[in-house]
Amino acid sequence: MSVAVKALFFDVFGTVTDWRGGVAREAERILKPLGHALDWLAFADAWRDQYQPAMEEVRAGRLPFCKLDVLHRHNLDRIRPRFGLSGLAEDTARDLNLAWHRLDGWPDAAPGLARLKRRFMLAPVSNGNISLMVDLARRNGFPWDAILGAETAGDYKPKPRVYLAACEALDLPPGECMMVAAHTNDLLAAAKCGLRTAHIARPNERGPGTGEAAPKAPVDIAAGSLEDLAAKLGT
Amino acid sequence: MSVAVKALFFDVFGTVTDWRGGVAREAERILKPLGHALDWLAFADAWRDQYQPAMEEVRAGRLPFCKLDVLHRHNLDRIRPRFGLSGLAEDTARDLNLAWHRLDGWPDAAPGLARLKRRFMLAPVSNGNISLMVDLARRNGFPWDAILGAETAGDYKPKPRVYLAACEALDLPPGECMMVAAHTNDLLAAAKCGLRTAHIARPNERGPGTGEAAPKAPVDIAAGSLEDLAAKLGT
Repeated sequence: MSVAVKALFFDVFGTVTDWRGGVAREAERILKPLGHALDWLAFADAWRDQYQPAMEEVRAGRLPFCKLDVLHRHNLDRIRPRFGLSGLAEDTARDLNLAWHRLDGWPDAAPGLARLKRRFMLAPVSNGNISLMVDLARRNGFPWDAILGAETAGDYKPKPRVYLAACEALDLPPGECMMVAAHTNDLLAAAKCGLRTAHIARPNERGPGTGEAAPKAPVDIAAGSLEDLAAKLGT
Repeated sequence: MSVAVKALFFDVFGTVTDWRGGVAREAERILKPLGHALDWLAFADAWRDQYQPAMEEVRAGRLPFCKLDVLHRHNLDRIRPRFGLSGLAEDTARDLNLAWHRLDGWPDAAPGLARLKRRFMLAPVSNGNISLMVDLARRNGFPWDAILGAETAGDYKPKPRVYLAACEALDLPPGECMMVAAHTNDLLAAAKCGLRTAHIARPNERGPGTGEAAPKAPVDIAAGSLEDLAAKLGT
């Protein structure tokens, strides 16, 4: 690369962590003892389906910015009737909403990040809020240098402000920052802001064969995992 | 303590790092080869003397918020004539301004933080900007969970907003957060917002006998070092 990259920014849901398996597992752990018997993966998928529409309300300026935890709760309440969960106690609903704070990293995530940390500054640039990112990092040993992303920018990806605020926080021009994601649309939005891009293949993000096995547009690096990215960046 | 503390917030300049020794050392490293012969400690003290007045312009609303790096540079330019540094090349002045990014932790800082991290979320709540905090953490191995403080709050301590924004970022009520500082005024401001307080003795912060060997007002914990704080908190 002509310009040396100094910082790597990471999408987290899907790229670094397995949201689908984690939400399904947490829902089962919390709801099964209460007598609920759902299709846990279908429940995770339905919850995630509300994700983009909810953020779009903020991105379009129809709602003021609020943390993703708030949107997740709103989205949960929307899908509850469909899964027979309308009568959930408030404490249970609140605990269930924290399922997103208890996701596991993909097996290559923590070791890959540890290698990348030797040479690069690392930060999540996720739509997840700060407390959510902190909980995921403590659970999985993600060695972030700072938590950047939607909450510090006050808007949601793929709005340009989110990528640019991350560069500005580290005093770096966009060309010295690289966005790392398993979703081509995230990378295209970052590239429009001048950032470098690395695609991570997560072909099974939403179940076998559902994710992007390869980028759908040109990127600077296409890697099979975060450990592969570390190798391709020479760390 | 009646309420369990979940997060520890740290003042950094003086409490976790030795700003005086670090700025003096960096100034000598950069300026001596250029033929300058200053009293390096006096230079560090003079630069630091501009710190509170510069932030007061922001706190009072006479200047919009800007990163501490910007204030440090403004302050450097103010004291340059006094030290025969008016003719400094721009590159040199810019490098010198980054002296604050290259401070060393007090010897107890990294080991104390590593112990505290096992049980508590840890974040700097400093007036230093995010990039400055990241550079200090990478240099010294400070295991922060997130970088909070002035830049995320958009104002400078001891304004209440800075402490409260840190609590809100972690979704914690102030009573579950503890401010850790070597300066009683910082702790009093945090306590007014409802946070718990821990004082760290740094009697030699500005040279022998210049710092606070003990808190000047009641605090929840008075410790001799960050390792002593870890012991007193049972970690």
